[in-house]
Amino acid sequence: MKFATILVVIEVGGTIAFAMSGLLEAIRKRMDIIGVFSVAFVSAFGGGTVRDVLLDRRPLFWIQHQEYVWLVIVLALTAPLWLKTSRHQMTGKAMEFADACGLGLFAISGATIASSAGMPPLVSVLMGAITAVFGGVSRDVLCNQIPKVYHDHSPYTLCAVVGCAVFLGLDALDLAPHWSTTAGICTVTGSRLLAVALGLKLPAWPAVKYNQD
Amino acid sequence: MKFATILVVIEVGGTIAFAMSGLLEAIRKRMDIIGVFSVAFVSAFGGGTVRDVLLDRRPLFWIQHQEYVWLVIVLALTAPLWLKTSRHQMTGKAMEFADACGLGLFAISGATIASSAGMPPLVSVLMGAITAVFGGVSRDVLCNQIPKVYHDHSPYTLCAVVGCAVFLGLDALDLAPHWSTTAGICTVTGSRLLAVALGLKLPAWPAVKYNQD
Amino acid sequence: MKFATILVVIEVGGTIAFAMSGLLEAIRKRMDIIGVFSVAFVSAFGGGTVRDVLLDRRPLFWIQHQEYVWLVIVLALTAPLWLKTSRHQMTGKAMEFADACGLGLFAISGATIASSAGMPPLVSVLMGAITAVFGGVSRDVLCNQIPKVYHDHSPYTLCAVVGCAVFLGLDALDLAPHWSTTAGICTVTGSRLLAVALGLKLPAWPAVKYNQD
Repeated sequence: MKFATILVVIEVGGTIAFAMSGLLEAIRKRMDIIGVFSVAFVSAFGGGTVRDVLLDRRPLFWIQHQEYVWLVIVLALTAPLWLKTSRHQMTGKAMEFADACGLGLFAISGATIASSAGMPPLVSVLMGAITAVFGGVSRDVLCNQIPKVYHDHSPYTLCAVVGCAVFLGLDALDLAPHWSTTAGICTVTGSRLLAVALGLKLPAWPAVKYNQD
Repeated sequence: MKFATILVVIEVGGTIAFAMSGLLEAIRKRMDIIGVFSVAFVSAFGGGTVRDVLLDRRPLFWIQHQEYVWLVIVLALTAPLWLKTSRHQMTGKAMEFADACGLGLFAISGATIASSAGMPPLVSVLMGAITAVFGGVSRDVLCNQIPKVYHDHSPYTLCAVVGCAVFLGLDALDLAPHWSTTAGICTVTGSRLLAVALGLKLPAWPAVKYNQD
Repeated sequence: MKFATILVVIEVGGTIAFAMSGLLEAIRKRMDIIGVFSVAFVSAFGGGTVRDVLLDRRPLFWIQHQEYVWLVIVLALTAPLWLKTSRHQMTGKAMEFADACGLGLFAISGATIASSAGMPPLVSVLMGAITAVFGGVSRDVLCNQIPKVYHDHSPYTLCAVVGCAVFLGLDALDLAPHWSTTAGICTVTGSRLLAVALGLKLPAWPAVKYNQD
């Protein structure tokens, strides 16, 4: 019970963080309220929706848990107010933290769902990464920019991949689900926070001077 | 029978209007005939396809009604001719009208389908809006621009949302389907035409000077 | 048996060519390793995934054949090395050839799958084209540019459409599957190679001076 409560708290925090990232980007692009809500919605639920469609699971996460849709609606309607009154720098740090928590929870929940559906480890890791990252990718596509997670060279998807691998490895060793889940989430969130704190960057490919034409 | 005929007429008109919006955008981006057809196709059928995939309904609308695919093919092949010979200003007004009709029909049909599939009201409204709007969103993503419906501040999706709510409300009151459907479509189409005629604009979010980095 | 082996060889070659096209585009956009892998993955498997989702087939192609996912992973990790040491002009020609083979195989396999699922000819041709082309379209959307296949006016999708029609026509005449498949693939690949060699261009629509606003 207590473990489940912690997961719900993280889930709410992660959903808010993901929705806020879409909301801020949409405001920056000067969208109207419908655009702001739509981009926030896709940022929060896009990853899980794509995972469920690929695995053919229904009902979708946000259809089963309508309270999260209401949460995003309220957020879209009130956020400007909230953003105005909050201290911005503090909010930025809080957002990074909530986003890293969401990354961890969404990645491990995606891997758990795929694994329970009988998917092999490689596919489960991919599904965990898709769940955690595809909302942000869709947000950037709707905002007409190259997906930030592909482009800013800060480790993000990689943290999700590593954490999912840790989770599946421990799960294969028959560790109690509580522990493997906790270890997985902590690996993702911890490595992500560390990467941000240390300003780690993924190496770029050497720019091959390749002329396709 | 007569009511069904009216719906088919609106459906054909709406499909033509949606396909034309994609066609014109693709021509403007100087795409070739395949690009013009593809964007017209996605504009016309994208919304219903996403709805059916999210609700796990098969066969898809355009697979069940191939005559609409042929309609878009003929349109893509003949439209330049047609556009050249028609009076442009008149065409623009006719397009706005047909588009508003399509918006109404597609929104209410989406909400009806979701509601019949046992979805709760909130999800049915979202499905109505997705059916009506997602084709245009996909069109703009393929044309590499921010979705117009998120960005031009003219009420569009909002009309669909309000009309779907009216439809579901009347339906909950056990009004005959004919009447609730008619009222829903008229609300969407009427409010959209009014918004265009009066040049109504949705308020933008105050541009919060928020520095995410 | 021998025929099946040839098909696998083409499939591997086509998958590599499609993945490489995404990989090169992602490197050009200066993405990190995760972005490079993601875009390569979507380029290689996007078309087949959309086809399977539209037809409601599971498991997806790349879930059933994980070896192809490993192939793309290895490709993403080693390609820069490989690109550096290879002669670039030769690579470009080899890529065009492999891409044309992939186009042929993916188009005909998509049409075969749709046709076996009981789809009518028009839908089977569309599914063949979607299988062959949608990976490239997704690649360009993720790289924030207008899909090249809609825009460069070189016949590509059209070759797939014509080849699928040839395949379905011969199939309807009760030709042995071996022959109709071979004829279909050769039509797609041959016409594509011819189009590239001769520098054929699809005519653009006359730029109608149409003012939508």
